[in-house]
Amino acid sequence: MSPKTLNVGLAQQACTSDRDANLAASLNSIRELADHGAQLIVLPELHAHPYFCQIEDPVSFNLAEAIPGPTTHAISAIARELGVVVVASVFERRAPGLYHNTAVVIERDGDVIGTYRKMHIPDDPGYYEKYYFTPGDLGFTPIDTSVGRLGVLVCWDQWFPEAARLMALAGAELLLYPTAIGWNPDEVEEERQRQWEAWIIIQRAHAIANGIPAVVCNRVGFEPDPSGQTPGISFWGTSFIVGPQGEWLATASAEEPATLTAELDLSHSESVRRAWPYLRDRRIDAYGGLLKRYLDR
Amino acid sequence: MSPKTLNVGLAQQACTSDRDANLAASLNSIRELADHGAQLIVLPELHAHPYFCQIEDPVSFNLAEAIPGPTTHAISAIARELGVVVVASVFERRAPGLYHNTAVVIERDGDVIGTYRKMHIPDDPGYYEKYYFTPGDLGFTPIDTSVGRLGVLVCWDQWFPEAARLMALAGAELLLYPTAIGWNPDEVEEERQRQWEAWIIIQRAHAIANGIPAVVCNRVGFEPDPSGQTPGISFWGTSFIVGPQGEWLATASAEEPATLTAELDLSHSESVRRAWPYLRDRRIDAYGGLLKRYLDR
Repeated sequence: MSPKTLNVGLAQQACTSDRDANLAASLNSIRELADHGAQLIVLPELHAHPYFCQIEDPVSFNLAEAIPGPTTHAISAIARELGVVVVASVFERRAPGLYHNTAVVIERDGDVIGTYRKMHIPDDPGYYEKYYFTPGDLGFTPIDTSVGRLGVLVCWDQWFPEAARLMALAGAELLLYPTAIGWNPDEVEEERQRQWEAWIIIQRAHAIANGIPAVVCNRVGFEPDPSGQTPGISFWGTSFIVGPQGEWLATASAEEPATLTAELDLSHSESVRRAWPYLRDRRIDAYGGLLKRYLDR
Repeated sequence: MSPKTLNVGLAQQACTSDRDANLAASLNSIRELADHGAQLIVLPELHAHPYFCQIEDPVSFNLAEAIPGPTTHAISAIARELGVVVVASVFERRAPGLYHNTAVVIERDGDVIGTYRKMHIPDDPGYYEKYYFTPGDLGFTPIDTSVGRLGVLVCWDQWFPEAARLMALAGAELLLYPTAIGWNPDEVEEERQRQWEAWIIIQRAHAIANGIPAVVCNRVGFEPDPSGQTPGISFWGTSFIVGPQGEWLATASAEEPATLTAELDLSHSESVRRAWPYLRDRRIDAYGGLLKRYLDR
């Protein structure tokens, strides 16, 4: 098989309540990554904002915007200037009272070529996303770009093997996870370690189960809880890129903003799948229960 | 939640062409594990035999036996004597010309209380299982025992998130993987490392995705290819037990037979699932594609 190389980059970013500064940081990182040869660049989840879902505040809906809108306009301009494909993340205002957590894929000519609305929406103390985001209604549909067919998923989706599998079955050539996840700073060290390792393992496992690379872009740094009711969130960074056997290609620190690149050969996935041919052997005749909430007896 | 402790044990075993010696080793390990307090004991895949699937040889079908049969009789006797539940693995002769790779669950009173016929059957050089084993027709059905509801799966199943998920949805309290996997001794070190890590990661990920412990029992040691056409298989051992966050509880070496135990608290899984409630959020309305071979455009 002839190689199909792709230089992929990601921007691990710390975010504040200054939207313009956040966006400027994203644009700077895109420029830096393009300088390093990145053809495809992934930004973290909701990179224009602090992680406002730490509390349920009606005012935060004012952060939402249309697609296309101010954030995508800014990214389209730099994508066109630099000739790179960018996966951005927008708090989407679809209609008055209807909002999504949406990944936007912008082509190297600046066009918004596709969107993915986060399908699995979390909700637990400090992550009140069900208040803000209507679950996605676009399904698990990869987005075709000039650099390949992208399986874009968002954060909480990363815990669901179903999401990665559906993207792979629809021909995704790699998995991309814009993310915002961190620790409760009061948590004991052992539990922090378990959570962090679990998060790494499950995403490496999606690469392995499907024989395609995965790119995970997290935010980093501490963000306080505006209500003061919790100790806030220490976003754990550790953005990473793995190959189709889940093997490490690049990883960022848990403490600092960073840009990261890796050269993928998308044609290598077929060799991996020939060696461990899971797609050949799936028992689709016996998987009906996957469409049930629970298999009560 | 009141604790539901379970002391689980496994016997990482090396196998030869001497069936009686293999079975004696299994029985010795069961006795040793019971002495260490194990209430549930897992044996490797096809532990009474060398891994005969390295070649396609019609004579090997003579190794198959009924369930119940000689192997389960021997294990039933010791299970009853010691009052332990055992997960054994049998080359099942179901009818003339119809054979399965079957895990057998034997209760502490010696009864064969349930079977699981391997659903996903591999086939690649050195692992010619499609020649020997008809794919299972019992589905992904956990087996109720005095120590809990067991999600018994076998080897190649371990690469399929669907299998683990279906067991969890049917109420399995832990996942059990009797296994026979190893390296081609001629493989380069980097590739050996990738394969071995991928195998660990994907099974830890099944625990994580489903919030239940996983017990993996592999064989160990070198077995030659009787045909001499390949360099044989170095089974990589590394049997392990992880908790419901995929956290390490116990692991065996890659080189030697071993017995291994860990104390699980099955009630802990509910706390883990409350913290990271994947079962709450599965998008069963959008998972239809999982029942397809591929989502062609």
